[in-house]
Amino acid sequence: MSRLRIQSFSVSVDGYGAGPEQSLVNPLGIGAMALHEWALGTRTFRRMHGGDGGTTGVDDEFAARGFADIGAWILGRNMFGPVRGRWPDDAWRGWWGDNPPYHTPVFVLTHHARESIALEGGTIFHFVTDGIGAALERARQAAKGHDVRLGGGVATIRQYLRAGLVDELHLALAPIVLGRGEPLFADLDLPSLGFVRTEHVATPNAMHVVWQRQRSSDHKLDP
Amino acid sequence: MSRLRIQSFSVSVDGYGAGPEQSLVNPLGIGAMALHEWALGTRTFRRMHGGDGGTTGVDDEFAARGFADIGAWILGRNMFGPVRGRWPDDAWRGWWGDNPPYHTPVFVLTHHARESIALEGGTIFHFVTDGIGAALERARQAAKGHDVRLGGGVATIRQYLRAGLVDELHLALAPIVLGRGEPLFADLDLPSLGFVRTEHVATPNAMHVVWQRQRSSDHKLDP
Repeated sequence: MSRLRIQSFSVSVDGYGAGPEQSLVNPLGIGAMALHEWALGTRTFRRMHGGDGGTTGVDDEFAARGFADIGAWILGRNMFGPVRGRWPDDAWRGWWGDNPPYHTPVFVLTHHARESIALEGGTIFHFVTDGIGAALERARQAAKGHDVRLGGGVATIRQYLRAGLVDELHLALAPIVLGRGEPLFADLDLPSLGFVRTEHVATPNAMHVVWQRQRSSDHKLDP
Repeated sequence: MSRLRIQSFSVSVDGYGAGPEQSLVNPLGIGAMALHEWALGTRTFRRMHGGDGGTTGVDDEFAARGFADIGAWILGRNMFGPVRGRWPDDAWRGWWGDNPPYHTPVFVLTHHARESIALEGGTIFHFVTDGIGAALERARQAAKGHDVRLGGGVATIRQYLRAGLVDELHLALAPIVLGRGEPLFADLDLPSLGFVRTEHVATPNAMHVVWQRQRSSDHKLDP
């Protein structure tokens, strides 16, 4: 079965996945661009946004891995854009312009129905109003055997993790503190959820750690 | 003036400085020995406990720095031992045997008075019942111009940080999650407290980050 993966998710030393006061001007919250410094200079990130050059190496390999074998994405509504409540119109089409970096179907969680939006490069935004389980089911169908990537933000990731629906988690620990923002780990007990660390490697820009969730069929005592 | 320094303080990716269920058998809490793996193999740690050998390099340099120019220590009572409430007798003399690794006066915060204990190698445990400010004052006097190291545990470190009394903070981020335990960062806004990152370097075992607190006299706008 296709797996649900969180990749390249950046967290500060004090556990924030986004800064305070997220807005149109500061979509990640104040100070939180620094969370992503490890990724911004990589070849993968630059190509994704139509540039060239960029670094290769461990940071770039992790960035690239996040796009390998992905057949669909799931995003929280606040990651799709700053609009809250009912959609006033169809003007907002995401942060990413006419050719977003997804190139797959993207399922956006929202309480407010809206028509799908097909953009250049294969990205289609679908709006899912019947919950995280339904979004995952639709994403899996759309992914046609490939994996599903859970993009964020923090609240969405916490929901899926606590529901036991995530198979792989890659965090990039940025060497900064934000002081305030959206905390990722509050009441989130990853060992109890079955996550086992499978990889860790540090670069000058981030400490990368990967955990895999043991499915119950993997437990020796629970055959 | 001598500075108050937190050094080599290990924290998990999910922000715990100690594990759950601390006890005589698990003084650091369940699973939390893994927080300190980066330090356990270093030459500094081994020598400190009467061994030889051990690794050199970045992890060892950070471990060693924690003992350089230190004239006194401050510990929370729970770091001194598992006894809670009134001291039943004078039997408990710390976790560290007859020759503890401090070799300076050590000021232990407690609500319950007790006679000082002089041990081998220059360590003297003093018990301070009139609060963190008084403990710092006494430690500074005892340090005779050298710095004071704040050893822990989590609750004690949080108290001193929030009171604005810490000058330097070195955290070693261990590539593990504990899931439960004593959270270091809850409601702790290090940027607002004036901490500025001065150093960060990662090894295969930990991501080391150092912050210095800007004293008000350092602020350009506040001469």
